[in-house]
Amino acid sequence: MTGKDGGADLAPIGNSPVVILVRPQLADNIGAVARAMGNGGLFHLRLVAPRDGWPQPNAWRNASGADRILDSLTLHDTLAEATADLHHVYATCPRPRHIVKPVLTARGAAAELRAVCARGLRAGLLFGPERAGLDNDDMAGADALVRYPLNPGFMSLNLAQAVMVMAYEWWTAADETPPRALMTNESPVADKGALDNFLIHLVAELDNCGFLRNAHKRPGMIRNIRHLFQRGELTEQELRTLHGMVTELAHPRRAGKRG
Amino acid sequence: MTGKDGGADLAPIGNSPVVILVRPQLADNIGAVARAMGNGGLFHLRLVAPRDGWPQPNAWRNASGADRILDSLTLHDTLAEATADLHHVYATCPRPRHIVKPVLTARGAAAELRAVCARGLRAGLLFGPERAGLDNDDMAGADALVRYPLNPGFMSLNLAQAVMVMAYEWWTAADETPPRALMTNESPVADKGALDNFLIHLVAELDNCGFLRNAHKRPGMIRNIRHLFQRGELTEQELRTLHGMVTELAHPRRAGKRG
Repeated sequence: MTGKDGGADLAPIGNSPVVILVRPQLADNIGAVARAMGNGGLFHLRLVAPRDGWPQPNAWRNASGADRILDSLTLHDTLAEATADLHHVYATCPRPRHIVKPVLTARGAAAELRAVCARGLRAGLLFGPERAGLDNDDMAGADALVRYPLNPGFMSLNLAQAVMVMAYEWWTAADETPPRALMTNESPVADKGALDNFLIHLVAELDNCGFLRNAHKRPGMIRNIRHLFQRGELTEQELRTLHGMVTELAHPRRAGKRG
Repeated sequence: MTGKDGGADLAPIGNSPVVILVRPQLADNIGAVARAMGNGGLFHLRLVAPRDGWPQPNAWRNASGADRILDSLTLHDTLAEATADLHHVYATCPRPRHIVKPVLTARGAAAELRAVCARGLRAGLLFGPERAGLDNDDMAGADALVRYPLNPGFMSLNLAQAVMVMAYEWWTAADETPPRALMTNESPVADKGALDNFLIHLVAELDNCGFLRNAHKRPGMIRNIRHLFQRGELTEQELRTLHGMVTELAHPRRAGKRG
Protein backbone atom coordinates (compact mmCIF):
# COMPACT_ATOMS: atom_id res chain seq x y z
CA MET A 1 0.00 0.00 0.00
CA THR A 2 3.00 2.35 0.10
CA GLY A 3 3.39 4.79 -2.75
CA LYS A 4 5.65 2.77 -5.04
CA ASP A 5 6.17 3.87 -8.60
CA GLY A 6 4.53 2.11 -11.52
CA GLY A 7 1.66 -0.31 -11.13
CA ALA A 8 -1.31 -0.67 -13.42
CA ASP A 9 -3.24 2.45 -14.38
CA LEU A 10 -5.73 3.21 -11.62
CA ALA A 11 -5.36 -0.32 -10.24
CA PRO A 12 -8.46 -0.84 -8.09
CA ILE A 13 -8.19 -1.81 -4.46
CA GLY A 14 -11.09 -3.73 -2.96
CA ASN A 15 -14.24 -2.14 -1.61
CA SER A 16 -13.93 1.65 -1.70
CA PRO A 17 -16.46 4.44 -1.10
CA VAL A 18 -18.57 5.97 -3.85
CA VAL A 19 -18.08 9.70 -4.49
CA ILE A 20 -21.41 11.43 -5.19
CA LEU A 21 -21.38 14.91 -6.70
CA VAL A 22 -24.73 16.55 -6.00
CA ARG A 23 -25.83 19.02 -8.71
CA PRO A 24 -22.26 19.76 -9.89
CA GLN A 25 -21.98 22.85 -12.07
CA LEU A 26 -18.72 22.72 -14.03
CA ALA A 27 -17.54 19.85 -16.23
CA ASP A 28 -13.95 21.01 -15.57
CA ASN A 29 -14.46 20.31 -11.90
CA ILE A 30 -15.99 16.88 -12.55
CA GLY A 31 -12.84 15.97 -14.49
CA ALA A 32 -10.57 17.33 -11.75
CA VAL A 33 -12.59 15.35 -9.21
CA ALA A 34 -11.98 12.14 -11.18
CA ARG A 35 -8.25 12.88 -11.23
CA ALA A 36 -8.17 13.49 -7.47
CA MET A 37 -10.14 10.29 -6.91
CA GLY A 38 -7.59 8.31 -8.93
CA ASN A 39 -4.76 9.83 -6.84
CA GLY A 40 -6.37 8.62 -3.65
CA GLY A 41 -7.65 5.25 -4.88
CA LEU A 42 -11.36 6.07 -5.15
CA PHE A 43 -12.95 4.71 -8.31
CA HIS A 44 -16.73 4.94 -8.10
CA LEU A 45 -18.32 8.24 -9.14
CA ARG A 46 -22.01 9.16 -9.29
CA LEU A 47 -23.50 12.41 -10.54
CA VAL A 48 -26.84 13.73 -9.32
CA ALA A 49 -28.47 16.15 -11.78
CA PRO A 50 -25.33 17.84 -13.19
CA ARG A 51 -26.29 21.38 -14.20
CA ASP A 52 -25.05 21.18 -17.80
CA GLY A 53 -26.05 17.58 -18.48
CA TRP A 54 -23.77 14.67 -19.15
CA PRO A 55 -21.42 13.66 -20.80
CA GLN A 56 -19.26 16.80 -21.20
CA PRO A 57 -15.94 16.60 -23.14
CA ASN A 58 -14.29 19.14 -20.77
CA ALA A 59 -14.45 16.62 -17.96
CA TRP A 60 -12.27 14.13 -19.83
CA ARG A 61 -9.89 16.91 -20.82
CA ASN A 62 -9.41 17.87 -17.18
CA ALA A 63 -9.11 14.33 -15.81
CA SER A 64 -5.49 13.88 -16.97
CA GLY A 65 -5.99 10.21 -17.73
CA ALA A 66 -8.48 9.21 -15.05
CA ASP A 67 -10.81 8.30 -17.92
CA ARG A 68 -11.91 4.99 -16.47
CA ILE A 69 -13.55 6.80 -13.56
CA LEU A 70 -15.50 9.10 -15.91
CA ASP A 71 -16.34 6.30 -18.37
CA SER A 72 -17.92 4.20 -15.65
CA LEU A 73 -19.70 6.87 -13.59
CA THR A 74 -23.48 6.68 -13.21
CA LEU A 75 -26.02 9.45 -13.60
CA HIS A 76 -28.97 9.94 -11.22
CA ASP A 77 -31.99 12.24 -11.10
CA THR A 78 -32.17 12.40 -7.31
CA LEU A 79 -29.86 11.96 -4.37
CA ALA A 80 -32.19 9.31 -2.94
CA GLU A 81 -31.73 7.26 -6.12
CA ALA A 82 -27.94 7.71 -5.98
CA THR A 83 -27.71 6.48 -2.39
CA ALA A 84 -30.40 3.77 -2.44
CA ASP A 85 -27.92 0.84 -2.48
CA LEU A 86 -25.50 2.36 0.08
CA HIS A 87 -25.31 1.48 3.78
CA HIS A 88 -23.43 4.52 5.10
CA VAL A 89 -23.50 8.05 3.73
CA TYR A 90 -21.16 10.87 4.76
CA ALA A 91 -21.92 14.44 3.70
CA THR A 92 -19.07 16.93 3.37
CA CYS A 93 -20.21 20.27 4.68
CA PRO A 94 -18.10 23.27 5.66
CA ARG A 95 -20.69 24.92 7.91
CA PRO A 96 -23.27 22.62 9.46
CA ARG A 97 -26.05 24.67 11.06
CA HIS A 98 -29.14 23.58 12.96
CA ILE A 99 -28.31 19.96 12.31
CA VAL A 100 -28.10 17.23 14.92
CA LYS A 101 -25.68 14.72 13.51
CA PRO A 102 -22.18 13.42 14.18
CA VAL A 103 -19.50 15.67 12.69
CA LEU A 104 -16.24 14.04 11.64
CA THR A 105 -12.91 15.43 10.52
CA ALA A 106 -11.71 14.18 7.13
CA ARG A 107 -9.28 11.90 8.97
CA GLY A 108 -11.97 10.64 11.31
CA ALA A 109 -14.26 9.95 8.35
CA ALA A 110 -11.50 8.10 6.47
CA ALA A 111 -10.89 5.81 9.45
CA GLU A 112 -14.61 5.06 9.71
CA LEU A 113 -14.92 4.51 5.95
CA ARG A 114 -12.06 2.01 6.08
CA ALA A 115 -13.84 0.14 8.87
CA VAL A 116 -17.22 0.25 7.09
CA CYS A 117 -15.74 -0.94 3.79
CA ALA A 118 -13.77 -3.70 5.51
CA ARG A 119 -17.12 -5.08 6.73
CA GLY A 120 -18.25 -5.30 3.09
CA LEU A 121 -20.74 -2.44 3.45
CA ARG A 122 -21.16 0.16 0.70
CA ALA A 123 -20.35 3.74 1.69
CA GLY A 124 -20.86 7.05 -0.06
CA LEU A 125 -19.32 10.52 0.23
CA LEU A 126 -21.50 13.48 -0.77
CA PHE A 127 -20.10 16.71 -2.18
CA GLY A 128 -22.41 19.64 -2.89
CA PRO A 129 -22.54 22.06 -5.81
CA GLU A 130 -19.67 24.52 -6.23
CA ARG A 131 -21.49 27.64 -5.18
CA ALA A 132 -23.82 26.66 -2.37
CA GLY A 133 -22.74 23.27 -1.10
CA LEU A 134 -25.20 20.62 0.08
CA ASP A 135 -28.61 21.86 1.20
CA ASN A 136 -30.49 20.79 4.31
CA ASP A 137 -32.45 18.06 2.50
CA ASP A 138 -29.25 16.60 1.07
CA MET A 139 -27.75 16.40 4.54
CA ALA A 140 -30.85 14.92 6.18
CA GLY A 141 -30.20 11.59 4.46
CA ALA A 142 -26.59 11.32 5.64
CA ASP A 143 -25.38 9.36 8.66
CA ALA A 144 -22.72 11.89 9.49
CA LEU A 145 -21.22 15.16 8.34
CA VAL A 146 -17.58 15.64 7.40
CA ARG A 147 -16.00 18.98 8.10
CA TYR A 148 -12.33 19.54 7.27
CA PRO A 149 -10.18 21.39 9.75
CA LEU A 150 -8.96 24.31 7.61
CA ASN A 151 -8.17 28.00 7.99
CA PRO A 152 -11.41 29.63 9.22
CA GLY A 153 -10.16 32.86 7.66
CA PHE A 154 -10.45 31.38 4.15
CA MET A 155 -12.91 28.54 3.77
CA SER A 156 -13.51 28.83 0.01
CA LEU A 157 -12.56 25.29 -1.01
CA ASN A 158 -12.61 24.21 -4.66
CA LEU A 159 -14.75 21.10 -5.31
CA ALA A 160 -11.85 19.03 -6.65
CA GLN A 161 -9.69 20.16 -3.72
CA ALA A 162 -12.40 18.98 -1.32
CA VAL A 163 -12.43 15.58 -3.03
CA MET A 164 -8.61 15.55 -3.03
CA VAL A 165 -8.40 15.97 0.74
CA MET A 166 -10.90 13.17 1.32
CA ALA A 167 -9.26 10.85 -1.26
CA TYR A 168 -5.84 11.56 0.26
CA GLU A 169 -7.13 10.74 3.74
CA TRP A 170 -8.80 7.57 2.43
CA TRP A 171 -5.51 6.39 0.95
CA THR A 172 -3.43 7.50 3.94
CA ALA A 173 -5.71 5.68 6.40
CA ALA A 174 -4.37 2.39 5.01
CA ASP A 175 -0.83 3.54 4.33
CA GLU A 176 2.13 2.52 6.45
CA THR A 177 4.93 4.61 4.98
CA PRO A 178 7.16 5.79 7.84
CA PRO A 179 6.88 9.59 8.35
CA ARG A 180 10.66 9.91 7.87
CA ALA A 181 12.97 7.49 6.10
CA LEU A 182 16.34 7.74 4.39
CA MET A 183 16.34 7.07 0.68
CA THR A 184 19.75 5.47 0.27
CA ASN A 185 19.81 4.62 -3.40
CA GLU A 186 22.15 1.66 -4.03
CA SER A 187 24.74 2.70 -1.45
CA PRO A 188 24.19 1.35 2.06
CA VAL A 189 24.33 3.56 5.14
CA ALA A 190 27.89 3.59 6.53
CA ASP A 191 28.42 1.93 9.92
CA LYS A 192 30.29 3.56 12.79
CA GLY A 193 33.52 1.69 11.97
CA ALA A 194 33.59 3.12 8.44
CA LEU A 195 32.91 6.59 9.83
CA ASP A 196 35.73 6.16 12.38
CA ASN A 197 38.12 5.15 9.61
CA PHE A 198 37.36 8.36 7.79
CA LEU A 199 37.73 10.47 10.94
CA ILE A 200 41.12 8.84 11.66
CA HIS A 201 42.22 9.66 8.11
CA LEU A 202 40.92 13.23 8.39
CA VAL A 203 42.51 13.88 11.79
CA ALA A 204 45.86 12.48 10.61
CA GLU A 205 45.90 14.92 7.68
CA LEU A 206 44.72 17.79 9.88
CA ASP A 207 47.62 16.98 12.24
CA ASN A 208 49.98 16.88 9.25
CA CYS A 209 48.98 20.25 7.88
CA GLY A 210 49.03 21.91 11.29
CA PHE A 211 45.27 22.62 11.61
CA LEU A 212 45.25 20.87 15.03
CA ARG A 213 48.52 22.32 16.27
CA ASN A 214 46.98 23.79 19.45
CA ALA A 215 47.37 20.76 21.75
CA HIS A 216 45.04 22.28 24.35
CA LYS A 217 42.14 22.77 21.92
CA ARG A 218 42.81 19.64 19.84
CA PRO A 219 40.49 17.19 21.72
CA GLY A 220 37.51 19.56 21.61
CA MET A 221 38.10 20.38 17.95
CA ILE A 222 38.17 16.68 17.08
CA ARG A 223 34.94 16.15 19.01
CA ASN A 224 33.25 18.98 17.12
CA ILE A 225 34.39 17.58 13.78
CA ARG A 226 33.01 14.18 14.81
CA HIS A 227 29.68 15.78 15.76
CA LEU A 228 29.50 17.40 12.35
CA PHE A 229 30.03 14.22 10.34
CA GLN A 230 27.81 12.29 12.71
CA ARG A 231 24.80 14.48 12.07
CA GLY A 232 23.61 13.00 8.80
CA GLU A 233 23.25 9.34 7.96
CA LEU A 234 26.36 9.12 5.72
CA THR A 235 26.45 6.39 3.08
CA GLU A 236 29.49 4.29 2.20
CA GLN A 237 29.67 6.06 -1.17
CA GLU A 238 29.70 9.46 0.52
CA LEU A 239 32.52 8.33 2.85
CA ARG A 240 34.57 7.22 -0.18
CA THR A 241 34.05 10.68 -1.67
CA LEU A 242 35.14 12.33 1.61
CA HIS A 243 38.27 10.13 1.80
CA GLY A 244 39.14 11.18 -1.75
CA MET A 245 38.59 14.87 -1.02
CA VAL A 246 40.84 14.80 2.04
CA THR A 247 43.56 12.86 0.25
CA GLU A 248 43.64 15.18 -2.75
CA LEU A 249 43.42 18.36 -0.65
CA ALA A 250 46.42 17.16 1.37
CA HIS A 251 48.39 15.70 -1.55
CA PRO A 252 47.30 17.49 -4.72
CA ARG A 253 48.01 15.67 -7.99
CA ARG A 254 48.34 18.96 -9.82
CA ALA A 255 51.08 21.17 -8.47
CA GLY A 256 50.95 24.93 -8.74
CA LYS A 257 48.05 25.85 -6.46
CA ARG A 258 50.09 25.37 -3.30
CA GLY A 259 51.92 27.92 -1.20
CA MET B 1 -7.14 26.61 15.76
CA THR B 2 -10.25 24.56 15.06
CA GLY B 3 -12.20 25.32 11.90
CA LYS B 4 -14.67 27.82 13.19
CA ASP B 5 -16.68 29.91 10.79
CA GLY B 6 -15.93 33.55 10.20
CA GLY B 7 -12.68 35.21 11.19
CA ALA B 8 -10.76 37.77 9.21
CA ASP B 9 -9.98 37.07 5.57
CA LEU B 10 -6.85 34.92 5.41
CA ALA B 11 -5.98 35.82 9.01
CA PRO B 12 -2.27 35.03 9.35
CA ILE B 13 -1.02 32.69 12.01
CA GLY B 14 2.54 33.19 13.21
CA ASN B 15 5.60 31.82 11.47
CA SER B 16 4.55 29.63 8.53
CA PRO B 17 6.52 28.02 5.70
CA VAL B 18 7.15 29.69 2.36
CA VAL B 19 5.75 27.93 -0.72
CA ILE B 20 8.17 28.12 -3.64
CA LEU B 21 6.93 27.28 -7.12
CA VAL B 22 9.92 26.41 -9.29
CA ARG B 23 9.44 27.31 -12.99
CA PRO B 24 5.63 27.11 -12.84
CA GLN B 25 3.99 26.98 -16.26
CA LEU B 26 0.32 27.97 -15.93
CA ALA B 27 -1.01 31.15 -14.31
CA ASP B 28 -4.26 29.26 -13.59
CA ASN B 29 -2.30 26.88 -11.41
CA ILE B 30 -0.50 29.68 -9.60
CA GLY B 31 -3.91 31.12 -8.69
CA ALA B 32 -5.22 27.75 -7.57
CA VAL B 33 -2.06 27.29 -5.50
CA ALA B 34 -2.73 30.60 -3.71
CA ARG B 35 -6.29 29.47 -2.95
CA ALA B 36 -5.11 26.15 -1.55
CA MET B 37 -2.47 27.95 0.54
CA GLY B 38 -5.17 30.19 2.02
CA ASN B 39 -7.25 27.13 2.90
CA GLY B 40 -4.37 25.62 4.83
CA GLY B 41 -3.01 28.79 6.43
CA LEU B 42 0.10 29.25 4.28
CA PHE B 43 0.63 32.85 3.22
CA HIS B 44 4.11 33.30 1.75
CA LEU B 45 4.54 32.50 -1.95
CA ARG B 46 7.66 32.80 -4.09
CA LEU B 47 7.94 32.16 -7.83
CA VAL B 48 11.17 31.09 -9.49
CA ALA B 49 11.29 31.91 -13.22
CA PRO B 50 7.59 31.44 -14.08
CA ARG B 51 7.39 30.35 -17.75
CA ASP B 52 4.99 33.06 -18.90
CA GLY B 53 6.33 35.90 -16.77
CA TRP B 54 4.58 37.69 -13.95
CA PRO B 55 2.04 39.11 -13.12
CA GLN B 56 -0.69 37.18 -15.00
CA PRO B 57 -4.37 38.18 -14.57
CA ASN B 58 -5.49 34.52 -14.80
CA ALA B 59 -3.82 33.80 -11.50
CA TRP B 60 -6.01 36.31 -9.65
CA ARG B 61 -9.10 34.99 -11.46
CA ASN B 62 -8.38 31.47 -10.25
CA ALA B 63 -7.46 32.41 -6.68
CA SER B 64 -11.09 32.90 -5.57
CA GLY B 65 -10.21 35.69 -3.22
CA ALA B 66 -6.77 34.67 -2.03
CA ASP B 67 -5.54 37.91 -3.57
CA ARG B 68 -3.37 38.92 -0.66
CA ILE B 69 -1.15 35.90 -1.24
CA LEU B 70 -0.67 36.77 -4.93
CA ASP B 71 -0.28 40.51 -4.24
CA SER B 72 2.57 39.91 -1.84
CA LEU B 73 4.44 37.07 -3.58
CA THR B 74 8.04 37.61 -4.61
CA LEU B 75 9.68 36.80 -7.95
CA HIS B 76 13.13 35.21 -8.24
CA ASP B 77 15.49 34.35 -11.08
CA THR B 78 17.02 31.32 -9.40
CA LEU B 79 16.07 28.79 -6.75
CA ALA B 80 19.24 29.68 -4.82
CA GLU B 81 18.05 33.29 -4.61
CA ALA B 82 14.56 32.18 -3.50
CA THR B 83 15.91 30.03 -0.67
CA ALA B 84 18.85 32.17 0.45
CA ASP B 85 17.16 33.43 3.65
CA LEU B 86 15.61 30.05 4.61
CA HIS B 87 16.96 27.61 7.18
CA HIS B 88 15.14 24.42 6.14
CA VAL B 89 14.01 23.46 2.65
CA TYR B 90 11.71 20.55 1.79
CA ALA B 91 11.34 19.44 -1.82
CA THR B 92 8.15 17.69 -2.91
CA CYS B 93 9.02 14.95 -5.31
CA PRO B 94 6.89 12.00 -6.42
CA ARG B 95 9.73 9.79 -7.58
CA PRO B 96 13.10 10.38 -5.92
CA ARG B 97 15.82 8.49 -7.79
CA HIS B 98 19.52 8.21 -7.11
CA ILE B 99 19.23 10.67 -4.27
CA VAL B 100 20.53 10.17 -0.77
CA LYS B 101 18.30 12.29 1.40
CA PRO B 102 15.61 11.82 4.04
CA VAL B 103 12.20 11.16 2.52
CA LEU B 104 9.15 12.31 4.49
CA THR B 105 5.46 11.75 4.05
CA ALA B 106 3.34 14.91 3.82
CA ARG B 107 2.24 14.32 7.41
CA GLY B 108 5.80 13.73 8.59
CA ALA B 109 6.94 16.91 6.83
CA ALA B 110 4.11 18.93 8.37
CA ALA B 111 5.08 17.81 11.86
CA GLU B 112 8.72 18.78 11.22
CA LEU B 113 7.71 22.11 9.69
CA ARG B 114 5.63 22.91 12.78
CA ALA B 115 8.64 22.15 14.96
CA VAL B 116 11.04 24.14 12.77
CA CYS B 117 8.71 27.16 12.62
CA ALA B 118 8.09 27.01 16.38
CA ARG B 119 11.86 27.52 16.81
CA GLY B 120 11.59 30.73 14.80
CA LEU B 121 13.45 29.28 11.80
CA ARG B 122 12.31 30.01 8.24
CA ALA B 123 11.24 26.99 6.20
CA GLY B 124 10.39 26.52 2.53
CA LEU B 125 8.44 23.97 0.51
CA LEU B 126 9.49 23.45 -3.11
CA PHE B 127 7.07 22.41 -5.84
CA GLY B 128 8.35 21.71 -9.34
CA PRO B 129 6.93 22.62 -12.75
CA GLU B 130 3.68 20.95 -13.84
CA ARG B 131 5.13 18.66 -16.45
CA ALA B 132 8.46 17.46 -15.16
CA GLY B 133 8.61 18.23 -11.44
CA LEU B 134 11.79 19.34 -9.69
CA ASP B 135 15.06 18.39 -11.37
CA ASN B 136 18.13 16.93 -9.68
CA ASP B 137 19.78 20.32 -9.15
CA ASP B 138 16.61 21.68 -7.52
CA MET B 139 16.58 18.77 -5.09
CA ALA B 140 20.28 18.94 -4.25
CA GLY B 141 19.70 22.12 -2.23
CA ALA B 142 16.91 20.64 -0.13
CA ASP B 143 17.30 19.18 3.35
CA ALA B 144 14.68 16.51 2.75
CA LEU B 145 12.26 15.24 0.14
CA VAL B 146 8.51 14.99 0.66
CA ARG B 147 6.67 12.18 -1.06
CA TYR B 148 2.94 11.79 -0.57
CA PRO B 149 1.52 8.33 -0.01
CA LEU B 150 -0.94 8.08 -2.93
CA ASN B 151 -2.23 5.47 -5.36
CA PRO B 152 0.86 4.19 -7.22
CA GLY B 153 -1.48 3.28 -10.09
CA PHE B 154 -2.22 6.96 -10.77
CA MET B 155 0.44 9.40 -9.62
CA SER B 156 -0.46 12.33 -11.91
CA LEU B 157 -1.01 15.01 -9.28
CA ASN B 158 -2.09 18.52 -10.23
CA LEU B 159 0.24 21.26 -8.90
CA ALA B 160 -2.51 22.97 -6.86
CA GLN B 161 -3.61 19.58 -5.49
CA ALA B 162 -0.04 18.90 -4.39
CA VAL B 163 0.02 22.24 -2.56
CA MET B 164 -3.46 21.53 -1.14
CA VAL B 165 -2.34 18.27 0.47
CA MET B 166 0.68 19.92 2.06
CA ALA B 167 -1.31 22.99 3.20
CA TYR B 168 -4.00 20.74 4.63
CA GLU B 169 -1.39 18.71 6.53
CA TRP B 170 0.26 21.92 7.78
CA TRP B 171 -3.06 23.12 9.19
CA THR B 172 -4.06 19.72 10.55
CA ALA B 173 -0.73 19.29 12.34
CA ALA B 174 -1.82 22.03 14.77
CA ASP B 175 -5.53 21.21 14.82
CA GLU B 176 -7.24 19.56 17.75
CA THR B 177 -10.75 18.96 16.40
CA PRO B 178 -11.94 15.58 17.71
CA PRO B 179 -12.24 13.02 14.86
CA ARG B 180 -15.92 12.49 15.75
CA ALA B 181 -18.19 14.85 17.64
CA LEU B 182 -21.91 15.41 17.84
CA MET B 183 -23.17 18.72 16.54
CA THR B 184 -26.10 19.31 18.87
CA ASN B 185 -27.35 22.67 17.77
CA GLU B 186 -29.12 24.43 20.67
CA SER B 187 -30.71 21.29 22.08
CA PRO B 188 -28.65 19.42 24.67
CA VAL B 189 -28.05 15.69 24.48
CA ALA B 190 -30.76 13.87 26.47
CA ASP B 191 -29.66 12.06 29.60
CA LYS B 192 -30.61 8.47 30.43
CA GLY B 193 -33.45 9.57 32.70
CA ALA B 194 -35.12 11.50 29.88
CA LEU B 195 -34.67 8.53 27.58
CA ASP B 196 -36.20 6.19 30.21
CA ASN B 197 -39.21 8.51 30.55
CA PHE B 198 -39.83 8.22 26.84
CA LEU B 199 -39.41 4.43 26.85
CA ILE B 200 -41.89 4.12 29.78
CA HIS B 201 -44.35 6.25 27.78
CA LEU B 202 -43.80 4.20 24.63
CA VAL B 203 -44.10 0.82 26.34
CA ALA B 204 -47.31 1.89 28.13
CA GLU B 205 -48.90 2.80 24.79
CA LEU B 206 -47.59 -0.38 23.16
CA ASP B 207 -49.18 -2.37 26.03
CA ASN B 208 -52.41 -0.41 25.55
CA CYS B 209 -52.68 -1.08 21.84
CA GLY B 210 -51.75 -4.75 22.21
CA PHE B 211 -48.39 -4.66 20.39
CA LEU B 212 -46.74 -6.34 23.43
CA ARG B 213 -49.54 -8.83 24.12
CA ASN B 214 -47.25 -11.89 23.92
CA ALA B 215 -46.12 -12.03 27.58
CA HIS B 216 -43.33 -14.49 26.80
CA LYS B 217 -41.72 -12.28 24.14
CA ARG B 218 -42.51 -8.95 25.86
CA PRO B 219 -39.21 -8.53 27.84
CA GLY B 220 -37.02 -9.24 24.80
CA MET B 221 -39.08 -6.92 22.58
CA ILE B 222 -38.74 -4.11 25.11
CA ARG B 223 -34.99 -4.69 25.26
CA ASN B 224 -34.70 -4.50 21.48
CA ILE B 225 -36.71 -1.27 21.39
CA ARG B 226 -34.42 0.15 24.06
CA HIS B 227 -31.35 -0.86 22.03
CA LEU B 228 -32.77 0.93 19.00
CA PHE B 229 -33.38 4.26 20.74
CA GLN B 230 -30.09 3.94 22.59
CA ARG B 231 -28.05 3.76 19.42
CA GLY B 232 -27.88 7.46 18.57
CA GLU B 233 -27.17 10.32 20.90
CA LEU B 234 -30.77 11.60 21.14
CA THR B 235 -31.30 15.24 22.03
CA GLU B 236 -33.97 16.56 24.39
CA GLN B 237 -35.75 18.14 21.41
CA GLU B 238 -35.81 14.82 19.57
CA LEU B 239 -37.27 13.10 22.66
CA ARG B 240 -40.04 15.70 22.82
CA THR B 241 -40.80 14.98 19.16
CA LEU B 242 -40.91 11.23 19.86
CA HIS B 243 -43.23 11.73 22.87
CA GLY B 244 -45.55 13.73 20.63
CA MET B 245 -45.52 11.12 17.87
CA VAL B 246 -46.40 8.30 20.26
CA THR B 247 -49.15 10.32 21.94
CA GLU B 248 -50.80 11.31 18.68
CA LEU B 249 -50.47 7.86 17.11
CA ALA B 250 -52.18 6.37 20.18
CA HIS B 251 -54.77 9.13 20.63
CA PRO B 252 -55.32 10.82 17.28
CA ARG B 253 -56.83 14.29 17.38
CA ARG B 254 -58.47 13.78 14.04
CA ALA B 255 -60.93 10.88 13.98
CA GLY B 256 -61.66 8.97 10.81
CA LYS B 257 -58.37 7.24 10.09
CA ARG B 258 -58.92 4.61 12.79
CA GLY B 259 -60.43 1.12 12.61
